[in-house]
Amino acid sequence: MDKKSTNKTDISTLGEFGLIEHLTQKIKHVNTGTRTGVGDDAAVLSYPEKEVLVTTDLLLEGIHFNLVYTPLKHLGYKSVVVNLSDIYAMNGQPKQITVSLGISSRFHLEDIDALYEGIHLACETYGVDLVGGDTSSSLTGMAISITALGEAQKEKIVYRNNAKKGDIICVSGNLGGAYLGLQLLERERKIFEEDYNIKPQLGGYEYIIGRQLKPEARKDIVERLSENSILPTSMIDISDGLSSDIMHITKNSGCGCKINSEKIPLVEETIKTAEEFNMDPLTAALNGGEDYELLFTVNKKDIEKVSELKDIYVIGQITDRKAGNQLVTPEGNSISLKAQGWKHQ
Amino acid sequence: MDKKSTNKTDISTLGEFGLIEHLTQKIKHVNTGTRTGVGDDAAVLSYPEKEVLVTTDLLLEGIHFNLVYTPLKHLGYKSVVVNLSDIYAMNGQPKQITVSLGISSRFHLEDIDALYEGIHLACETYGVDLVGGDTSSSLTGMAISITALGEAQKEKIVYRNNAKKGDIICVSGNLGGAYLGLQLLERERKIFEEDYNIKPQLGGYEYIIGRQLKPEARKDIVERLSENSILPTSMIDISDGLSSDIMHITKNSGCGCKINSEKIPLVEETIKTAEEFNMDPLTAALNGGEDYELLFTVNKKDIEKVSELKDIYVIGQITDRKAGNQLVTPEGNSISLKAQGWKHQ
Repeated sequence: MDKKSTNKTDISTLGEFGLIEHLTQKIKHVNTGTRTGVGDDAAVLSYPEKEVLVTTDLLLEGIHFNLVYTPLKHLGYKSVVVNLSDIYAMNGQPKQITVSLGISSRFHLEDIDALYEGIHLACETYGVDLVGGDTSSSLTGMAISITALGEAQKEKIVYRNNAKKGDIICVSGNLGGAYLGLQLLERERKIFEEDYNIKPQLGGYEYIIGRQLKPEARKDIVERLSENSILPTSMIDISDGLSSDIMHITKNSGCGCKINSEKIPLVEETIKTAEEFNMDPLTAALNGGEDYELLFTVNKKDIEKVSELKDIYVIGQITDRKAGNQLVTPEGNSISLKAQGWKHQ
Repeated sequence: MDKKSTNKTDISTLGEFGLIEHLTQKIKHVNTGTRTGVGDDAAVLSYPEKEVLVTTDLLLEGIHFNLVYTPLKHLGYKSVVVNLSDIYAMNGQPKQITVSLGISSRFHLEDIDALYEGIHLACETYGVDLVGGDTSSSLTGMAISITALGEAQKEKIVYRNNAKKGDIICVSGNLGGAYLGLQLLERERKIFEEDYNIKPQLGGYEYIIGRQLKPEARKDIVERLSENSILPTSMIDISDGLSSDIMHITKNSGCGCKINSEKIPLVEETIKTAEEFNMDPLTAALNGGEDYELLFTVNKKDIEKVSELKDIYVIGQITDRKAGNQLVTPEGNSISLKAQGWKHQ
């Protein structure tokens, strides 16, 4: 947080209604389905021909984000993106979001403005309208709750429960970076907190830090698949790590999987950083999470088409339920995958 | 909170996915527009013929509720109801909700079950489906974020900005009770915290305490108006107090109002309790909030029809913008209304 808080504007000078007015005055809608947004008891939207997709996320300071190393603009951007990612993971197009905010007295108007700058930027980037929300005080820290609504043609919606034996497992982008970015930020935070004179050493890690602090949702992948007439049989976005997320697909689809460890896409910076932390980069890819890449399955007939697409990687195959969820090493060893959700603190 | 926490189940014994499974296993959908709910990246809903209404609220422990005197089941119920109330205030029918929860380690499985019992009861009472959400840990306290979706015929949606000079101002139920219920609970909490041997004296105040802890949304009023072919010209639910809420209508509609103070509906228990607190009961009605009654305007031609309806009261008239927002006493004195939103703590 900024130390020069004496130059900042106390939110109480605006009051609740003044704050809402301040935060909503810049809002412009781009979607024709957005009839009315902020300013009434509820927003009014129109979805006459397509299905409505709805997803929601609650982000709490100290659990989901640490403001010591997370710029508020990035936080606003990421909070929106993680929700849009869920809409893309259904093969849908996000259209609207609502944002609810709880803020303690430690935050000033300039902080909230920075957060909303990121929120507006994400809306602009992804063509989404901010249509509602709620702002209140909190006793401690910041709470951000975002709900995203999107649309999809009924026949084009991709669920988690429709993968079939023989289907090809694909993933976009690369994995493990967001997790290692977080490890790095946490390491530098601890060093900095022990000695405020030591400056964080983050040079050369820009990519993975960006993966952690400012992820993107894979709108481009959904579009690329559609342009190439590939309709995945199942899809999910990678928020918990490849291991947990493929197991959401196999569990819901009643099947198993075989992932080829050497096919899991990793970039140089991820591998290098993992080595620094004495960690197998695959562990970061499998259990790290927050990469917000798309993990999906396609019918075997589409393997050639999908293999040619930019930034999409074939990493395995759907198997029988009885075969379980297996990671196969280049040496041919099979290791059972394990799911790791959050643990209650 | 229950003192016998040793007999309770630690949430960590279930893990994230176990908890989600536990909380979602009892869910049944009643609306045909709910295609799929919990269990994928997003819920899939269908709104082919009507407009979609969306509203959201974030409730934080210590700000919006105090668990010392709020049973978790009631809290779950109220959290849903305050959102449904916003949908009714648009003259819509709520259809789905999503629930996101942040819980600190102080809460056990039995607590979360009690909260969800109230959430499910509200869903059942109002015919709403629970279609999604998110559960995570929090550093301190409980955070509940609920989004409600509903439907309304385009021509039947009632906004805040369409009240016209000459329209009749109506309110349902009675006002001020929820606020005085809160004052009472707060008074007994303070006495109890000073001396744990003194039992709270809440006998004879059951009605207003119920108004605070377990409010209802006025589905019946929306239905009654519709059955009697009355389409309000503007509507809002009373969450901030009559004063603030009528001013949302007049500000958005570009007009003023004249409220007859003696017409504001108050019940005996509210008046009696206000006297105990040396407070004018009208102050509780005007500035208290949380009554979740409907405040609406109708065309003058509907005054007879609306006057005959059960539990609906004519309290004033819409005037010119220049006339401002006035409260008129029985003696004929005019007092300017003031809006009071939350103040940042």
